[in-house]
Amino acid sequence: MVNEKYKKMLSGKSVIRELAEYATARGKEIGYENVFDFSLGNPSVPCPKGYTEAVIKMHKEKDPMAIHGYSPSPGNPFVRETVAKSLRNRFDLPYETKHIFMSSGAAGAIAHAIRLVTEPGDEVIGFAPFFPEYRPYVNDSGAELKVVPARFEDFQINFDALLEMLNPKVMAVLINTPNNPSGVFYTKETLTRLSDILREKEKEYEHEIFLISDEPYREIIFDGKAYEYPSKYYANTISCYSFSKSLSLPGERIGYVAVNPAAKDADILADMCTQISRGIGHNCPAATAQLGVAEVIDEVSDISVYETNRNLLYDAFTRLGFTTVKPDGTFYILVKALEEDAVAFCNKAKDYDLIFVPADNFGAPGYFRVAYCIDTEKVRRTIPVLEKFVEEIYR
Amino acid sequence: MVNEKYKKMLSGKSVIRELAEYATARGKEIGYENVFDFSLGNPSVPCPKGYTEAVIKMHKEKDPMAIHGYSPSPGNPFVRETVAKSLRNRFDLPYETKHIFMSSGAAGAIAHAIRLVTEPGDEVIGFAPFFPEYRPYVNDSGAELKVVPARFEDFQINFDALLEMLNPKVMAVLINTPNNPSGVFYTKETLTRLSDILREKEKEYEHEIFLISDEPYREIIFDGKAYEYPSKYYANTISCYSFSKSLSLPGERIGYVAVNPAAKDADILADMCTQISRGIGHNCPAATAQLGVAEVIDEVSDISVYETNRNLLYDAFTRLGFTTVKPDGTFYILVKALEEDAVAFCNKAKDYDLIFVPADNFGAPGYFRVAYCIDTEKVRRTIPVLEKFVEEIYR
Repeated sequence: MVNEKYKKMLSGKSVIRELAEYATARGKEIGYENVFDFSLGNPSVPCPKGYTEAVIKMHKEKDPMAIHGYSPSPGNPFVRETVAKSLRNRFDLPYETKHIFMSSGAAGAIAHAIRLVTEPGDEVIGFAPFFPEYRPYVNDSGAELKVVPARFEDFQINFDALLEMLNPKVMAVLINTPNNPSGVFYTKETLTRLSDILREKEKEYEHEIFLISDEPYREIIFDGKAYEYPSKYYANTISCYSFSKSLSLPGERIGYVAVNPAAKDADILADMCTQISRGIGHNCPAATAQLGVAEVIDEVSDISVYETNRNLLYDAFTRLGFTTVKPDGTFYILVKALEEDAVAFCNKAKDYDLIFVPADNFGAPGYFRVAYCIDTEKVRRTIPVLEKFVEEIYR
Repeated sequence: MVNEKYKKMLSGKSVIRELAEYATARGKEIGYENVFDFSLGNPSVPCPKGYTEAVIKMHKEKDPMAIHGYSPSPGNPFVRETVAKSLRNRFDLPYETKHIFMSSGAAGAIAHAIRLVTEPGDEVIGFAPFFPEYRPYVNDSGAELKVVPARFEDFQINFDALLEMLNPKVMAVLINTPNNPSGVFYTKETLTRLSDILREKEKEYEHEIFLISDEPYREIIFDGKAYEYPSKYYANTISCYSFSKSLSLPGERIGYVAVNPAAKDADILADMCTQISRGIGHNCPAATAQLGVAEVIDEVSDISVYETNRNLLYDAFTRLGFTTVKPDGTFYILVKALEEDAVAFCNKAKDYDLIFVPADNFGAPGYFRVAYCIDTEKVRRTIPVLEKFVEEIYR
């Protein structure tokens, strides 16, 4: 018999996807260059040339059976060691091959990490604003997602609310820095305080509370700032990474879980991920994509366009009187709508072919997300349209 | 806190993997050419040249953002339509794009299919001998796997046992034809009788019983025989496919779910798969692998070596007095050990560097599996060693 839960989920279509589909359809009517489509977080810069060259070279020169053979369940050992080495060098933590599990993007990494450190019925704490897909990741594991409300003034952590929500059923805390949708990253102060609280509660509850750190935007940081790596602050950290954004390879579905070498059971957690994979029927990312990213492990796509776009949009939104927080990175900005109902606001913006995503599902009602992974030229053309929209509708 | 279930699973290491690791280690001692390693089902012939050429061409000529961008959750629509068209032409069933969901190999396809048509607590019936990973696929969905004992004389279905095990909690029946580990495929008679029984029970129980058909070896058929496609016999069929074996691309993790267009809810089942993916944190196979297989959709690697190997081994085993059934396809043969305990038998064979897998976990105690996806030259060199082993230990 057909499963009812998944059947019902069909009616809950993703707002982002609906808007992206609308933008595409509208583009067919009036030319896509005239649609100011800020709906999707699809990178707008190509992957590094080195990736393309590596893929071509391996297909030309290597034995097909060697490159297309089964990868061991936790990933190609050479690729895992390459990831471990890169993390060692960058963050000065003693990662080894055994701490790395190659996953199908950050989505796969998070889904594994949650199952790794929770049992059905446990609680996982997340923080608004948050990527809406955290809900299905947590729900499907049998754990329950509890969301700490946003601290809208700076999108750091609302610690009072966190302290109220912590209880012995909490086995994991899920953060995302820099953040989708706000673009803000957690400061040294935020991570220090969060770690202190979690360590204290671990003692009080007499069990570990794992920090699951979702970091696909780790490389996309602006203003020359330094990224604060959560695992440096808290030993029981599982970092979840994706090459989708840093290398502009979202379709290749490749990322990893990196277990802090000082975490409880650090030596077996990546191995346990392979047991989780068996049950959900997925093993590794594609063997050739693993080999490809290993060749460019410390490279990043040319992301300067995102910073330019951030500057243009942040200036425009603030000049026009919008409330927002300047993003530290990513390619998102979260902005307060000019009326209480962000859905209504975004619908009105659609009449001007401005496609913004209401952030209700991100835990930020009244706000909208702007994904500026698009050409700068289009961002420039957006600004007068935005001005006109605000002038005509809200002045 | 670390999940206990997955931690415990670590101790239950795969027998196949342990033997494969032993064979590799032994190969380092005496030269791998001297180890008669029949442990792993890793294809031993290269992928079609057209796949390699297609991958090189797309990386050389196409816009990286176009080939590496996010694929829609159910898969690239062009690739889905290519699959649907190929199935239409080959099996004369009116598949459309909407019936196809691209998955991470057959493992991903089966894990999705089980969740699609069961609720936790439901029963899924499988048939010995069976691929041991069916257990974690079913267990993790919350359903329960019940296994119909093998009909050892021909590895068709033991219908008396099936009829005893059918009950209203059974929502799905999981078959694998041609079969890993027996190499036998289900005949017209078997599929007709199975379908008749299931249709009758659907009426009696007043709910659908879906047939989940695992078909990664569908293309590897010997003696010029015709493959009987289960979906032709039974409308409520979900075919689970992988390109791992037919195109020798196991590391690329690509396959699909194909819903029979006449199945209950056929129009939404593939879409429901995308909802399942959200919860398990995996979406599509790699975008470039999808595009690659679409270019060679109706090709098959040169699999003649498998038939040659089958002939050599079947003749040798029968000549030496072993009990077995002649495989119709795949690259496996299932053979009765010369003593009751197949584990003991395989351990003794190891002393001759003959690496066979005891089939207890496959639901065939007393039997062992021989994976003959290796060079024919090595198969030829195996036979005198096998003779010597039998002569010295069992005569």
